[in-house]
Amino acid sequence: MAAPAIAQTVESSVGPLRATVLAEGLDHPWALAFLPDGRFLVTERSGRLVLIESGVVSGVVEGVPNVVARGQGGLLDLALAPDFETSGQIYLTYAEPAEDAGLQRGTGTAVMAAKLVLTNGGGGQLEDQRVIFRMNNFTNSTRHFGSRIAIAPDGNLFVTLGERGDMDRAQDPEDLAGGIVRIAPDGSVPEDNPKPEGWAPEFWSIGHRNPQGATIRPGDGVLFTVEHGARGGDEVNMPTAGDNFGWPVITYGVDYSGVAIGEGTEKEGLEQPIHYWDPSISPSGLDFYEGSLMPDWEGDLLLGGLSGAVLVRLDMEGDAVVAEERLFEGQLGRIRDVRVGADGAVYLLTDADNGQLIRVAPEGK
Amino acid sequence: MAAPAIAQTVESSVGPLRATVLAEGLDHPWALAFLPDGRFLVTERSGRLVLIESGVVSGVVEGVPNVVARGQGGLLDLALAPDFETSGQIYLTYAEPAEDAGLQRGTGTAVMAAKLVLTNGGGGQLEDQRVIFRMNNFTNSTRHFGSRIAIAPDGNLFVTLGERGDMDRAQDPEDLAGGIVRIAPDGSVPEDNPKPEGWAPEFWSIGHRNPQGATIRPGDGVLFTVEHGARGGDEVNMPTAGDNFGWPVITYGVDYSGVAIGEGTEKEGLEQPIHYWDPSISPSGLDFYEGSLMPDWEGDLLLGGLSGAVLVRLDMEGDAVVAEERLFEGQLGRIRDVRVGADGAVYLLTDADNGQLIRVAPEGK
Repeated sequence: MAAPAIAQTVESSVGPLRATVLAEGLDHPWALAFLPDGRFLVTERSGRLVLIESGVVSGVVEGVPNVVARGQGGLLDLALAPDFETSGQIYLTYAEPAEDAGLQRGTGTAVMAAKLVLTNGGGGQLEDQRVIFRMNNFTNSTRHFGSRIAIAPDGNLFVTLGERGDMDRAQDPEDLAGGIVRIAPDGSVPEDNPKPEGWAPEFWSIGHRNPQGATIRPGDGVLFTVEHGARGGDEVNMPTAGDNFGWPVITYGVDYSGVAIGEGTEKEGLEQPIHYWDPSISPSGLDFYEGSLMPDWEGDLLLGGLSGAVLVRLDMEGDAVVAEERLFEGQLGRIRDVRVGADGAVYLLTDADNGQLIRVAPEGK
Repeated sequence: MAAPAIAQTVESSVGPLRATVLAEGLDHPWALAFLPDGRFLVTERSGRLVLIESGVVSGVVEGVPNVVARGQGGLLDLALAPDFETSGQIYLTYAEPAEDAGLQRGTGTAVMAAKLVLTNGGGGQLEDQRVIFRMNNFTNSTRHFGSRIAIAPDGNLFVTLGERGDMDRAQDPEDLAGGIVRIAPDGSVPEDNPKPEGWAPEFWSIGHRNPQGATIRPGDGVLFTVEHGARGGDEVNMPTAGDNFGWPVITYGVDYSGVAIGEGTEKEGLEQPIHYWDPSISPSGLDFYEGSLMPDWEGDLLLGGLSGAVLVRLDMEGDAVVAEERLFEGQLGRIRDVRVGADGAVYLLTDADNGQLIRVAPEGK
């Protein structure tokens, strides 16, 4: 594999944009958070939670959960609680081993809440760890854990769950796989969850395949997600309470073999995406742009492509995507996470053995 | 120039699609219509109206208007009246010379209505020619004639008009350049035109740059257009009655020099596109897909790209574009017109000295 370039520049709708590698040598980094002290907190899929400062891994956080680091599983998403500065509260998603869940076999997506205590030596420690959520059906599959967290303005957590490679699970209203759940910070079920008849009470929406990006729209608190289709049919959704987003009954993709899936692209009672990709880009990571560096992007969605190896901007007008801008296509590798920093720059994680943390900003900024 | 391939195949959302050249040697063909007898009627920008049968120009229609065939001007769009089979009525748009309009100088977009009489020898003759519309301000510019015709279910004609390369004209409510007009089949102004105060009565909408595609949505009769931006900012619009679509006050593009145009991308009182392109593709031709060959495309918009050298499908959900599929990119040349045939195939005209008529359909169909 060629050594990564330190910086690359592309033309964009806001002029020349530069991608600068801030750190490398990360083992399939999955999720990024910004600490108030300027450091980056990053999960590696193989199970480490690391602190990055001045371009290097400056410390490791102890006390993370055991994970099943096989296939697409491992230590996955990461979110700081809104009151992180005072509480130190963080949330992690991960592929949990059966034994830790008191089960006989398999793995499933789980959410751990814990307090992050930073130590003087530059590392950190999780304390008061609690598994506040887990799937209600563990299986041996190593695929489709989903597992992004988006924290709503009311403090509740949306957690996206893949269907674990078993498409029928996405339409089972009692099986949490292939759905988006809404839970309180302690894992309990909020009273105002939609709870259509026959649905597990944690559900917000069902019929999802493998949602690997989730974010909340600033201003109105509306949830947006991206999910992987099969061959074709990657989607951007606005998951609405108590609704069914159709996988695998409707999809804009086909099976990897080319065989049709389901009944077509539309059906009464099943919700449509607001945008889809065919061919697929394998979307991962999702954030709304807010900041001073690219003011023309204000309110637009940013996301990464894994197979697409691309940073995508979706220009939003209200709830509609009016244009798609593809940036750094094929230049940075598989993009796993995208987060907008307080400085208005866009930060990326690339999914590789030698994964990178990258900062994207206008040239010279 | 390399000889064109007779057929090319690409993968698409509906499987392998084949583009077959039906005729070539056309001189910058601009618009295509299907005659009830199976022949194609095509305008050439240089001023001919030709009949195509069995892969060759089998006849020429006499009696077309004089045109100023310079720059982007010449013989442009073509539409058959809804009652063409009984009336023989057709409409042509073109760059009209000043002298034919009783003016001293310049040229402007005009619309001629005439009766097409097909002759036994294989050619045809226009009779009862009437200029039913012309711009109210002729200039020497050879650019931005716009000039697509879309016939609404009520029989009225929408005609798109470019701003003739003078952007300020698009915001002048008395100057018909840079607007879309709505006229009756005889050229008179329909009583129910929007007529905001101060607007020329022909106007349906203003603030357009160079709209080169227009079509009516089946079912509800809503007008859709595509227009060229400058560098960036090509748009799909749903022009609504009495509204201002913003050029050059708002645009998603910049000047070809890179200099900013106008005040940004949004402004109170100015309408937004439903989709735009940056970088530009130079959209031309626009039609809704209806047909049995690509049932998954039903209700989607098809258009060509000139600089983009691409056939684009926009997947429509209601009024929103949810996905863009790019087909034959760089393979067929500059695509000037796109029309869906009664057989469900898609027919293209390429803009070249040796322009082609091309049929696109699933392989073997």
